[in-house]
Amino acid sequence: MNISMYQASAPRFANMLRNLAALLDKAQAHCEAKKIDPAVMGGMRLIADMFPLTRQVQVACDTSKGAVARLAGVEIPKHEDTEQTFAELKQRIAKTIDFILSVPAEKIDGSEERQVTLRLGGRDVTFTGIQYLLGFAYPNFYFHCTTAYDILRANGVELGKRDYIGSP
Amino acid sequence: MNISMYQASAPRFANMLRNLAALLDKAQAHCEAKKIDPAVMGGMRLIADMFPLTRQVQVACDTSKGAVARLAGVEIPKHEDTEQTFAELKQRIAKTIDFILSVPAEKIDGSEERQVTLRLGGRDVTFTGIQYLLGFAYPNFYFHCTTAYDILRANGVELGKRDYIGSP
Repeated sequence: MNISMYQASAPRFANMLRNLAALLDKAQAHCEAKKIDPAVMGGMRLIADMFPLTRQVQVACDTSKGAVARLAGVEIPKHEDTEQTFAELKQRIAKTIDFILSVPAEKIDGSEERQVTLRLGGRDVTFTGIQYLLGFAYPNFYFHCTTAYDILRANGVELGKRDYIGSP
Repeated sequence: MNISMYQASAPRFANMLRNLAALLDKAQAHCEAKKIDPAVMGGMRLIADMFPLTRQVQVACDTSKGAVARLAGVEIPKHEDTEQTFAELKQRIAKTIDFILSVPAEKIDGSEERQVTLRLGGRDVTFTGIQYLLGFAYPNFYFHCTTAYDILRANGVELGKRDYIGSP
């Protein structure tokens, strides 16, 4: 039976994005309790030359919607990076999930060997669908979800691994 | 054709563990150049109540070897948490990769519906193999690899996303 390309992509990204939204709920509650401007929290970084929280969330969204669209061979919806509040970041996540779950399974299934070409560091790199999903999209997606978590934890938001994992 | 349970597990974990070892090489070079005691870098944390670098690497190893062993239905090898230097952490990674790649593909293939039971927060939780791999082992594994990266970056080691992604 194996794992279908659909099983390994859209519902998994959507599940994790829901967890990311729940992290932002806790971050918002923390900011309210501690009288922290949400825009300040959204601008926090682990170090000056890494992306801030807001951008980590945007890139987690873009990585997952890009993966689903590329595997399905449909156009990647363009979402402008204008979010300034937790509510707006959660809307960004919600519309990403809506897109991801709108793509029919049968468009993604069968994409194992489909060629996916990305522009990376100024040159075109071509992957097979499996290689792209497992070796590029997954590690990138989890990188940005985890770094969002790490930024919040490093700034005092009380989160635990259970918030990050959610319901597997 | 789909993705086999083996394709989605052992070689993927091994690939990412190799990238993690390469991050440690850069960390070691940074410590040598800046006269930083490697034990100090190994003890760095993003915040006092998160694991330090050394433990992030150990848990990344344990998550991946545990996943491969549980899916294959073989005993999880016990590795003591005694590492103090970058060389020792890289040995830990190397023996984890050796174990992971020693498990035959045919033991892991077919584990989609195999029941995997973990003790979590004081109670037994049972997953199917797919759910365990995609919804629990993956996010945990990438969490610890990414947090190791984040700790190093936050402490001035010059790493880029390319080091983390390696060769997909």
